[in-house]
Order: sequence, then structure tokens, then C-alpha cells
Amino acid sequence: MYSTTSHKWSLASQDMAFKRKLSLYAVLVILVFLWFVGVKNRGGITYFSSEEDRYKNMRDALDAYEMELKFTREDMKRTLKLFKSSCDKWNPDLPVIYAITPTYERPAQRAELTRLSHTFMHVTNFHWIIIEDATKKSDVVTDILVQSKMNYTHLCALTPPDYKRKPKEPNWTKPRGVLQRNAGLQWLRDNRTPEDRGVVYFADDDNTYSIHIFNEMRWTKKVSIWPVGLVGGLLVEKPIVNSSGKVSGFNSAWGMDRPFPIDMAGFAISLPHLLSHPDVKFSFKVKMGHQESVFLEKLTKREDLEPLADNCTKIYVWHTRTEEPNLKFEQKLKSQGKSSLDNMKV
Amino acid sequence: MYSTTSHKWSLASQDMAFKRKLSLYAVLVILVFLWFVGVKNRGGITYFSSEEDRYKNMRDALDAYEMELKFTREDMKRTLKLFKSSCDKWNPDLPVIYAITPTYERPAQRAELTRLSHTFMHVTNFHWIIIEDATKKSDVVTDILVQSKMNYTHLCALTPPDYKRKPKEPNWTKPRGVLQRNAGLQWLRDNRTPEDRGVVYFADDDNTYSIHIFNEMRWTKKVSIWPVGLVGGLLVEKPIVNSSGKVSGFNSAWGMDRPFPIDMAGFAISLPHLLSHPDVKFSFKVKMGHQESVFLEKLTKREDLEPLADNCTKIYVWHTRTEEPNLKFEQKLKSQGKSSLDNMKV
Repeated sequence: MYSTTSHKWSLASQDMAFKRKLSLYAVLVILVFLWFVGVKNRGGITYFSSEEDRYKNMRDALDAYEMELKFTREDMKRTLKLFKSSCDKWNPDLPVIYAITPTYERPAQRAELTRLSHTFMHVTNFHWIIIEDATKKSDVVTDILVQSKMNYTHLCALTPPDYKRKPKEPNWTKPRGVLQRNAGLQWLRDNRTPEDRGVVYFADDDNTYSIHIFNEMRWTKKVSIWPVGLVGGLLVEKPIVNSSGKVSGFNSAWGMDRPFPIDMAGFAISLPHLLSHPDVKFSFKVKMGHQESVFLEKLTKREDLEPLADNCTKIYVWHTRTEEPNLKFEQKLKSQGKSSLDNMKV
Repeated sequence: MYSTTSHKWSLASQDMAFKRKLSLYAVLVILVFLWFVGVKNRGGITYFSSEEDRYKNMRDALDAYEMELKFTREDMKRTLKLFKSSCDKWNPDLPVIYAITPTYERPAQRAELTRLSHTFMHVTNFHWIIIEDATKKSDVVTDILVQSKMNYTHLCALTPPDYKRKPKEPNWTKPRGVLQRNAGLQWLRDNRTPEDRGVVYFADDDNTYSIHIFNEMRWTKKVSIWPVGLVGGLLVEKPIVNSSGKVSGFNSAWGMDRPFPIDMAGFAISLPHLLSHPDVKFSFKVKMGHQESVFLEKLTKREDLEPLADNCTKIYVWHTRTEEPNLKFEQKLKSQGKSSLDNMKV
């Protein structure tokens, strides 16, 4: 995180602290020496002109010592603060970000979750709720969560076969992540109370997030909203904010009959607000592309939305999609009962 | 980076430090009080049975003080070390990782560079050399580099139109990133000496990297090598390592006539070794898919390769590719002279 410049500054500062500690110790040694001289000579030759002088010297030394100690303490406090501010990832004074991420097994899963974890690892007070579309927790997901050293909750919720997309079906024909997101919501309802400060965000495992959006969404009062890049056939889908800072409309190119024509990556809900609506969840019985809008309708009105990302003028989230890797030789190997992995992990 | 547990530990430790500081100050106050009583009473009533007792008390207090100070210092040192180890991103004792990344303008460029920067921001002693296929530096790339607070070098090298892939041509028909990677190599040759410790890596802007690979490649003596996931039609392309820890072959599914059938993301070269081969660079006149192999042939022999990633049994790098976003409505807007961006940045 440090540029060379700030690094040099921090080194210099530690050097200073070391010098201060050295001089502190020097003062201590002098003090002990003075005291020793005093004791040694209490019955013999008196080097001090009088007892007052001796005490005066001792007092001066103590004063100087106290001053040095004060400086050292201030210096150390400054250094600690410097490290903390850019390093400490848990601050009890800040609301927690609960990111709910549905995931499923596929060749690029480890790659996608790895890079996503690298982004999340930069965010203070981050709690990753990851829900596998599976009957049991996989090694891939467990590994990534453990290695990230993040706070996390690892759950499973299997989508019934009827609701699963068939291999060649386009990805928008069946609602995805419904049971997984609902499992994440249920976990929050079971494990958090309205007194817990936090914000809930649906972060899919293939999207791209700039760190900025997390520090903005953290302060959501009820429901916040912002632009999403590369989605809905546009470079950006965004809320339109009027001069009084209220959302007055959206720029989507389709489904403008939706009250909230916005992607799952474009909004966050405060935890207390979510908990005060115990029945709100996702459903399989929603018109295609209307999942987000139907969900938000139960939680807010357009005029109550809190626009973020500089009044919705910045893109901090992108709906990226990863190409399915070309595995033509792997399939050939598979037909021969072989694999390029050969006991390696994916 | 911290889990709740280590956070609690760190808080507890600071609490302790605070208590220690408090008791330290208490001792100081007592000491000053004792001295004051001593001075006050030097001619009057003597509370101490003798002058020896007075000095003994003072000496004990000083000893206790010194001990407290020592503890405080140790405690502060420990806390600082804790913060430094997981936070400081520049360590003069470690070799530098120079990542050479060619990039070009496209709708997903900001998203891809953003998530890549989030990975690199975790790596100590990282120097990002990013070369745009353009005549002048773009705001997109500049923004990301500045915001990352990383060490970086920002260059441009335009690919001549004859060497550029046409819109509908498959991406493997023309060698890509040739002039950009060469510009990166030239910068290193112009700005670094064989005394500088470092390693050179070609990190494309759409691949996925686990943090682990950087800490392993950092210690490359000449040329190191490791598996790459999701490339060459396989789940993994990897060097085969024999029982004496030497690379004895490769598992690629095509082009096995290449001496080094491996992807650009699968090797690193130590900086002094690169600088000792001043003419080695990439070329447009190389058989399709042979760029990496021809490059490595000039730098090493198969038996000298240093296998990393646990003897090439782990995948730490994946050749991911991002789908071109669907922009059908954007194109409609464009034909009307409009854009969804409306003065926003991409």
C-alpha cells in the first residue's frame, strides 16, 4: 500500500523514535550515575556545592527524563496511528460490510474467487458470506476463505435440478443465486440484531469492484444506490440524480417499466433496515430481469434512495463476465480417463 | 487482513500498553513526590529513618521505573513489528518484482486494471511497468496507477496498424504486446544495473494471479517456471519435475516441438540475468504460439529452469479471459450521437 515516498517517511520516523529511545536511555544512565555518585559520597567528599544543588540536579534530570518520555510516547503514538490507519482491517467504530456471494463449481471458480478475495482483503470490517450451490462445502472455497484471513461465513444451499440452467441455455433464462442469496439473508436474520451496525451487499463472484464503493456503502442509512458499468447492453446503467440530490429516474435501455431498473451489484441495504423487514427475500417466481426491482420494492421508494459514487457520476462496480475457458484438449484427455491436473487442485 | 481474533489480540495488547504507560507514570509521580518530600524535609522533620533509607527508596523506585520502561519498550516494539509485518509494502532487503503489463483501450479496461491493481497492492516491493498500446498516456491507466499508491512506470508504445489484429480476427493470429513488452524491457535496461536485485515478470492485464506466486518468484536466480491454469485447451499446462527437482518435460497438448511449451504467465527472469542478455526481446517474426519459447531459448536451458509452486504441483496463475461486454444498446445510442456515459469516465 505504501509508495516509496511514504515508506521513506515511515523509516525516518522510526529512526527518530530509535534515536529518542537512545537519548532516553542515556538520560536514565546519567540519572543512575548521579544517584550513585550521590550515595557513594554521602559520607565522604561532596562534589555538589550543597544538598540543594544535588537535589536540583536530580530534579532537572528527572524533568528532562519526563520530557523525553513524553516525546517518545507521542512519537510512538504517531507511528502506531500511521500503521493502523492503512493497515488495520477491523475497527469496532465502523459498520460492518456483509457481502453475500453465491458461487458454484466450474473450471474458473478458483481463479475468480482468488481475485475477488484480493479486492475484499483491502476492505476494513469486511464479513464475507459465501454460499455454495452444493450439498457440501468444497475445498476450493474453504481454501480461499482461510487464506484470505477474512471474517467469513461459509454456507451451502443447493438449487433443485428443476431450477438449474441447462448447459446450453442462455444465462438469463433461469433466475440464478436465489436460494444462495436467501441463505445469506437468513444467516443474518439468525445471527445479527438490529443493534448491530452494518450494510448488506450482493457481490457476485465474477463482477469487478473498486475498493471505493465499500467505503461509501458502509454509511447506508436504509438503501443506497449507484451506477454499474458494462451491464444491460450499455457502458453504464445508472440512477439519474436531480439537483436536490434525489434519484429521479434511471438510464436503463430496457425494462423501464421496472420501478428499480438496476443490477444486483448497484445497491446496498443497511442491516437494521433489512432486519426490520423479516420476510423480504428473492424468489424463483419473478419475471425475467425483475429480481432486483421486486426485491427493492419491498424495501424502499425511489425518492428515498441514497445516491452514492459522487451523486452517481462515478463507476465503481462493473458487471464483468469471464469467458468459459477453451478446454478442447482436456475433454479429449477426459474421454481417455485422464486429466491434465494429475492429482493437482484445480 | 486481520481476522477478528488477531484484532482482539492487538487491541488487548494496546490496552496493556496503555496500562503499562499508566503505571509508568504513576511510578514517576511517586518518584517526584518522594524527591519533593525529601527536599521539603531536608532541614526539618525526617520521615525516613536515615539518609540511606531515603536513597534506598529512591533507588528502588528508579529500578522499578527502569523495569517498567523496559517492558513498555518491548511491548511497543512487538506491536510495531506486528503492524509492519502485515502492512509495510517496501522492504529494502527484498528483491523487487518488476511486472511488465501491456494494455490497450477497450470497454472493460478500467475494470480489469482495477482488479489487477487490487492483487498487486498486496505484494511487497512491487514495481508495475505498464505500457499502453497508444501514442499518449490515458486517464484510465493514470488514475488506476495513482490510486494504487504503487511504485510504477507508465509508458506508451503504439503497435503499427499492419501488426494490429482486425476486429473480427481471432486473437491468436497476430502476436500481441510485442512492442509494449519490449518497451518495458528497454526501460529496465536503461534504468537498472546488474547490482539491482529483482525479478522480471510478464503479467497480462486479464489474467488472474494468486499472491503466492510473487513471493516465490522473488527469489528467482536466473529463470523460474511454474504451472498456468486454463490455458492451451487444458485445465493446466505445467512443467514436469523429476525426482531430482529438475524440469524434465511439459504436459502441453500442442506445440510439443517447442523447447519451452509454456504461457507468458508461467515464468520469471531475474533482473541481473536479463541485463546480462542485452539483446533478448520479443519479435513479430515468430511462428504463432512460439513467442514465449523463442524468448526463453535465448535465456536458459530446460535443465537450468527453477521449478516453483511446490515443484510445479500448485496453480497460482490462471489464463482467464474476460468476455467482451454486450453493448447492443450502447451502439444504438452511439448511432444517435449519444452515450450512456454522459460525461462520466468509462
